[in-house]
Amino acid sequence: MQNIFITGAAGFIGSSLVDRLLADGKGVVGWDNLSTGQERFLEGARQHPKFRFIRGDNLDLDSLSSAMKGCDTVFHLAANADVRFGLNHPKKDFEQNTVATFNVLEAMRANGVKTIAFSSTGSVYGEASVIPTPEDHPFPVQTSLYAASKLSGEGMIHAYCEGYSFEGYVFRFVSILGERYTHGHVFDFYKQLTEHPGHLKVLGDGTQRKSYLYVQDCLAAMLQVMNAGLALKARHRVEVFNLGTDHYVQVNDSIRYICSALGLKPRLEYTGGERGWIGDNPFIFLETKKIREAGWKPALTIEQGIGRTLQWLQANRWVYETRK
Amino acid sequence: MQNIFITGAAGFIGSSLVDRLLADGKGVVGWDNLSTGQERFLEGARQHPKFRFIRGDNLDLDSLSSAMKGCDTVFHLAANADVRFGLNHPKKDFEQNTVATFNVLEAMRANGVKTIAFSSTGSVYGEASVIPTPEDHPFPVQTSLYAASKLSGEGMIHAYCEGYSFEGYVFRFVSILGERYTHGHVFDFYKQLTEHPGHLKVLGDGTQRKSYLYVQDCLAAMLQVMNAGLALKARHRVEVFNLGTDHYVQVNDSIRYICSALGLKPRLEYTGGERGWIGDNPFIFLETKKIREAGWKPALTIEQGIGRTLQWLQANRWVYETRK
Repeated sequence: MQNIFITGAAGFIGSSLVDRLLADGKGVVGWDNLSTGQERFLEGARQHPKFRFIRGDNLDLDSLSSAMKGCDTVFHLAANADVRFGLNHPKKDFEQNTVATFNVLEAMRANGVKTIAFSSTGSVYGEASVIPTPEDHPFPVQTSLYAASKLSGEGMIHAYCEGYSFEGYVFRFVSILGERYTHGHVFDFYKQLTEHPGHLKVLGDGTQRKSYLYVQDCLAAMLQVMNAGLALKARHRVEVFNLGTDHYVQVNDSIRYICSALGLKPRLEYTGGERGWIGDNPFIFLETKKIREAGWKPALTIEQGIGRTLQWLQANRWVYETRK
Repeated sequence: MQNIFITGAAGFIGSSLVDRLLADGKGVVGWDNLSTGQERFLEGARQHPKFRFIRGDNLDLDSLSSAMKGCDTVFHLAANADVRFGLNHPKKDFEQNTVATFNVLEAMRANGVKTIAFSSTGSVYGEASVIPTPEDHPFPVQTSLYAASKLSGEGMIHAYCEGYSFEGYVFRFVSILGERYTHGHVFDFYKQLTEHPGHLKVLGDGTQRKSYLYVQDCLAAMLQVMNAGLALKARHRVEVFNLGTDHYVQVNDSIRYICSALGLKPRLEYTGGERGWIGDNPFIFLETKKIREAGWKPALTIEQGIGRTLQWLQANRWVYETRK
């Protein structure tokens, strides 16, 4: 892992990874179509001699293949991460996640690049029957187009590992928080509270239980198992890891953390129901024994992660301007 | 289920389903690009006033949507079923299976068609850790592009059932045998024995254990659960069923049945190894308790199914002419 190609390099997690890998002395090619990515996240990286940014789209296989030339490892992080509105435009998840992942794999094959890390999601377990949910949970039913598209990506990566001797790392993320966070419930709540500090609208009944992980902990976990080359020892040259903390919080807990940090006591208005929207999962909590046994543990709790996120949002209100 | 749209209608299973549904008094629109389908399989159906054949490709969403107009149920059977050579052309499984299934779902949505049956595969369990393999087997690793593409299809169907209130039936088939069978090991072995009756080349070491199901038994199983509307009672409006017999045979058993039926004693040449090819699964045997509890059981044993297949191939040698 010396020359690393990152899709979604201008995104929240992607740009954080760019900085971390450059700090580790790696060469990095950042690839992003800037549809939701932020060029400002790469301002630091752009000063670095070992960084190169190429603007391009995963649906353009030829450009993608050219851009990847000379790399040895791919972090495929680019995705339509807009889970909630998936049903309004099913083509988006299909093209930007499923087709994009196929193209990334084909570009790798064309270039002889064999190592891939993939940001999948805890949502692939659907409404899990076992909680905390282990990686070998019973074959689930997909409840969102987003998760279905990530499941497609996982399956293709497996098949490329088995069939073309790729080395694959599939990471099923809980929601990630931290600096450069640009969507999700903390983002939405902070926005609302900036606009009207006395009133907060909450999707669902607030009892949804969710798990969150701090972005730097997420990056550390990925690098830990990849540097150890764990997939090379796996039966089918692919390893799947849940990434999360061993806690979860209710949306109501999160609201409490946020309001306490901001010193606000808004009136809460709940839309009601145990799901915030169709396909919302009322309880996400992943078993993280496997990644812990690989020698990783998170440095921050969920509350600390939410705190860091808020601090960053307060100092970077410009991100709200970029998102309508 | 009165007006039924069948993708892959000129194929082995599709054309058998066309005939069966017409016999049941249903209206049927057959859709096929004739890339591997056989117009001769539809000769009977074409005489029927309630049958209409439309030649078209699943990658052409506009034509697909137009063709589906007025139907209430879709059997999505069209697929690249060429499992063995998937690694030679990964785009084929991706386009003809993954993209095609997305298009079928979008065409359904455009037409307000809500009921779908999907031919998935026992291969989605990869190299299963539990045998016989139940529908809720631990989240598997995909070992072929074919299975990965079927897994993609399953996931999208789930998400459409949950998100758009579709009614979904996912059937994970073992290998299907019977009249109009045009590829697979019986097809290959009979071809070889016709060309050189004294010599049979076998991929792998002959100990691979596989399960087979007779095509009419397969159709009866699908219609049984769909007529009962079982998915409407399911938590996410989708039901997954394994379809197979409660037996398996070794490739060597199958060779014995075939040679005995043909009165031949060829010299056997094994290519060796427990897998016939990369991604071949040395042991496929599905648990069929769920579909049996729905009131179905197969009429034919695997040996009887192989017998029917051979009889049909002997009477229809023309199919070999159509396949190079």
